[in-house]
Amino acid sequence: MTLTSTPAWQKLKTHSEALRGASAFTPADIARLDDFSLSLNGLHLNYACQNATQETVDLLLELAAQQQVEENRTRMFAGDKINTTENRAALHTALRRGDNTPLLVDGLDIMPDIRATQTRIAAFVDDVRGGAWRGATGKTFKHIVNIGIGGSDLGPRLASQALIDYVEGVTMHFVANADAFDIDSVLAKCDPAQTLFVVVSKTFSTQETLMNARTARQWLTDALGVDAVAKHFVAVSANRDAVEAFGIHADNIFPMWDWVGGRYSLWSAVGLSVALAIGNENFRALWNGAAAMDAHFQSAPLHQNMPVMLALLAVWNRNFLDAPALAILSYCERLRDFPRFLQQLEMESNGKSVTRDGAALDYETGPILFGECGTVGQHSFHQWLHQGTTPIACDFIGVSEDDRHKPEHHRALLSNMVAQMGALAFGQKQAASPHDIYAGHRSSNLILLDRLDPYHLGLLLALYEHKTFVQGVIWGINSFDQPGVELGKRMAKGLEANSVSAGENGDFLSHLLQKILPK
Amino acid sequence: MTLTSTPAWQKLKTHSEALRGASAFTPADIARLDDFSLSLNGLHLNYACQNATQETVDLLLELAAQQQVEENRTRMFAGDKINTTENRAALHTALRRGDNTPLLVDGLDIMPDIRATQTRIAAFVDDVRGGAWRGATGKTFKHIVNIGIGGSDLGPRLASQALIDYVEGVTMHFVANADAFDIDSVLAKCDPAQTLFVVVSKTFSTQETLMNARTARQWLTDALGVDAVAKHFVAVSANRDAVEAFGIHADNIFPMWDWVGGRYSLWSAVGLSVALAIGNENFRALWNGAAAMDAHFQSAPLHQNMPVMLALLAVWNRNFLDAPALAILSYCERLRDFPRFLQQLEMESNGKSVTRDGAALDYETGPILFGECGTVGQHSFHQWLHQGTTPIACDFIGVSEDDRHKPEHHRALLSNMVAQMGALAFGQKQAASPHDIYAGHRSSNLILLDRLDPYHLGLLLALYEHKTFVQGVIWGINSFDQPGVELGKRMAKGLEANSVSAGENGDFLSHLLQKILPK
Repeated sequence: MTLTSTPAWQKLKTHSEALRGASAFTPADIARLDDFSLSLNGLHLNYACQNATQETVDLLLELAAQQQVEENRTRMFAGDKINTTENRAALHTALRRGDNTPLLVDGLDIMPDIRATQTRIAAFVDDVRGGAWRGATGKTFKHIVNIGIGGSDLGPRLASQALIDYVEGVTMHFVANADAFDIDSVLAKCDPAQTLFVVVSKTFSTQETLMNARTARQWLTDALGVDAVAKHFVAVSANRDAVEAFGIHADNIFPMWDWVGGRYSLWSAVGLSVALAIGNENFRALWNGAAAMDAHFQSAPLHQNMPVMLALLAVWNRNFLDAPALAILSYCERLRDFPRFLQQLEMESNGKSVTRDGAALDYETGPILFGECGTVGQHSFHQWLHQGTTPIACDFIGVSEDDRHKPEHHRALLSNMVAQMGALAFGQKQAASPHDIYAGHRSSNLILLDRLDPYHLGLLLALYEHKTFVQGVIWGINSFDQPGVELGKRMAKGLEANSVSAGENGDFLSHLLQKILPK
Repeated sequence: MTLTSTPAWQKLKTHSEALRGASAFTPADIARLDDFSLSLNGLHLNYACQNATQETVDLLLELAAQQQVEENRTRMFAGDKINTTENRAALHTALRRGDNTPLLVDGLDIMPDIRATQTRIAAFVDDVRGGAWRGATGKTFKHIVNIGIGGSDLGPRLASQALIDYVEGVTMHFVANADAFDIDSVLAKCDPAQTLFVVVSKTFSTQETLMNARTARQWLTDALGVDAVAKHFVAVSANRDAVEAFGIHADNIFPMWDWVGGRYSLWSAVGLSVALAIGNENFRALWNGAAAMDAHFQSAPLHQNMPVMLALLAVWNRNFLDAPALAILSYCERLRDFPRFLQQLEMESNGKSVTRDGAALDYETGPILFGECGTVGQHSFHQWLHQGTTPIACDFIGVSEDDRHKPEHHRALLSNMVAQMGALAFGQKQAASPHDIYAGHRSSNLILLDRLDPYHLGLLLALYEHKTFVQGVIWGINSFDQPGVELGKRMAKGLEANSVSAGENGDFLSHLLQKILPK
């Protein structure tokens, strides 16, 4: 039986007829503000502005039960191979666990290896920050350059920016793009003698990353000679041979495991740059926040379970209110890269057209994610949110604390955020001119952090990780693979080799490439 | 008669049935690469990878004729008040005209005023760059801080970044967000004695901009005293009284006109920061590029008209292939803010639900725009583009010249771009596993610049400006107003004043705000 013909789905379909294009509540329903609200250790989800009723929530919970969200959750935490296409577990949660109870993958307890790696990372971080580990000329490091792409870039980049108040003693740089402008402009800001490169690639064969690493190595050795590489380069990778062939010393390789996907890997050695930036104690606080969300996700009843509710409301908007997109509107400049992080997390995880078993789908899966900082977006695309022809859902992200100590700015920021939620929900159904009509009934969530610190950031990121997983469970898809990225990679390789390895497409594409390459 | 019942629309509807979910061409159709291609002075549009046939193009051209694209184009350039809701002309094209033929608005020739302003801007730019205009302590300026939001930020920000190779002698900074982190982190990089602030706000009452300007003024006067304001602040605004009340000298106010919308205003005095960064000659080259596109748009037959074809293909994807979004994928790191610029340009212009006459629509208008730099996006959301359940259209933006002189990087960049277009178009219809199937028939355009310089950037920006307008003409909407941003502004003001001015919504929103304000 396909999902769309199941009882829970059918009930939601019928229920949604009345709500699509209409308002589920009025401003008089102030009780919603308390009723549709969940909190965990200073992270709050308020879904009072969702175009949904208590009946909607009840029916969504029926859908969750029907789709065995609890059973799948248990399987994930237990290390079952829920990434079925790749025959792998999805154990990013193991990386932030507080205890050492054995966790078996293929019959082997992975916890000792995790702890050993964490100890090595912590020691290396202390050495670099304390000055025991120095560059080839004896100087301490002032610049950390993370070279990676996708999950090896977006998570560390987001965390370093979000926690910039906790960054001490070093300036962080991130290089991801194959465009040489990216690496060139970072190197222009650095002094070779004081620059440490962290090269992050699970296979150590990622084209962009290796190319940028080679360009960086050339820059370093031009200034300091080839022996400097051992002091100025470390790697995070599962491919030790390739890393050593690059010239990085075996002691300076931090492992990745195949039970951690790239977009869930900030908690592994992929977070090394972040740990170098903010120090071990703060990095552990980031883990602790995520671990607290893990514990909540594992134990809270579904109707009080923040990731579950966030996922169910997303399914409601996507599949029953026909919203093709979710806008992430962060009213905090330091979280400006959060939409980019979530773009990978959700769209790569849930942009799938077949079920776990390979059956074709007759319903939509993951939506488009895009976003901008509030209040910047208000002066850009919010016109479209309010009066466009395609209602979509929004997640507003706010921070309660005024840690800049500028109350006028802070109050304006939060007032604007709330006003946007209100305008989207209630609209303006009467006006002198039809151009001033706002339909309203546009769903939004408020996700509020008491403050922006490592712990709360950990809560926030793990919230969306689990949300992404729960959505995948509802849709019956594998949220942990990414088969859709292989074809383009293969075609690019074929084109670069001037071959026609992409089969009969090759001629067409080679012709196009010839037209655009510089003469 | 509503648009959807017109002959041209109906024909397209029928024609599209066969193409939705199927491929319009095969890799054997290499001739498309030449046939579906247009060029102007080093800017190229190749639409061979659109899921469209010659018949599609012919029918779209019928739609253009039916919707009077040529007549509307003539009206725009002539200064007719095509922004009907605000009773204004849309004359951004006048700002980059090469000649002084009179152009009448309300019976007055606007060209003399434009030229006088351009002369004043050029003189000011030369004074600052040449050192004749200095800070209060006699030092030359090393930092230019543009304070603005929306159109007063995104265009100058994009141009300054895209043309960074042309920036000389100064470092550019942009502050937009109400979040104090934005202004604080810019000021932390600046030295008061060498910092020039350019405050950009048509009304000089934009909340974020004025708040940031006040914070900047305080920072400056704390260091250099209140008299320094006259030397360190200039404004671009139509509200002279408010600017002077702020403390800016009347000589340092550069005008804005009501016939230029914010998102079309880079060519006006809003571009002052860019001119300060790249100098008058380069700024004129930017104008000249845009003017060349204007001339092309005005005179080329519709089937050879780049903005017209770009708009028609966008309508094809949005309304007939049901794509809710357009992804802007710039394979050039310096154009990383181009998607943000286009988000405002297209979504604010065409995110409308009523026709120019105020009639409700029964078809979709402007799509979602979002994007990322290639190759970064390939490791993030491209999984979704290739295998998600919602096919959308993509514009790939490339630069032919390898101006970094790193051929390995450059070839990888362009090969990946072409490979992505190929993977989207042709997919992979057979594979051992259903997880490795790619449906293909996903439309894309290639927009290629011979090189990234002021002239070509001008061509590119004007291309999308006119594309946006033509789409609006097809949809019968006003692309030059933004009534949908007013409600949120009013509600925010009400909340900040602790009033319930948003009517009965006020209580609900006040309660929500009270929950989130710091205790």
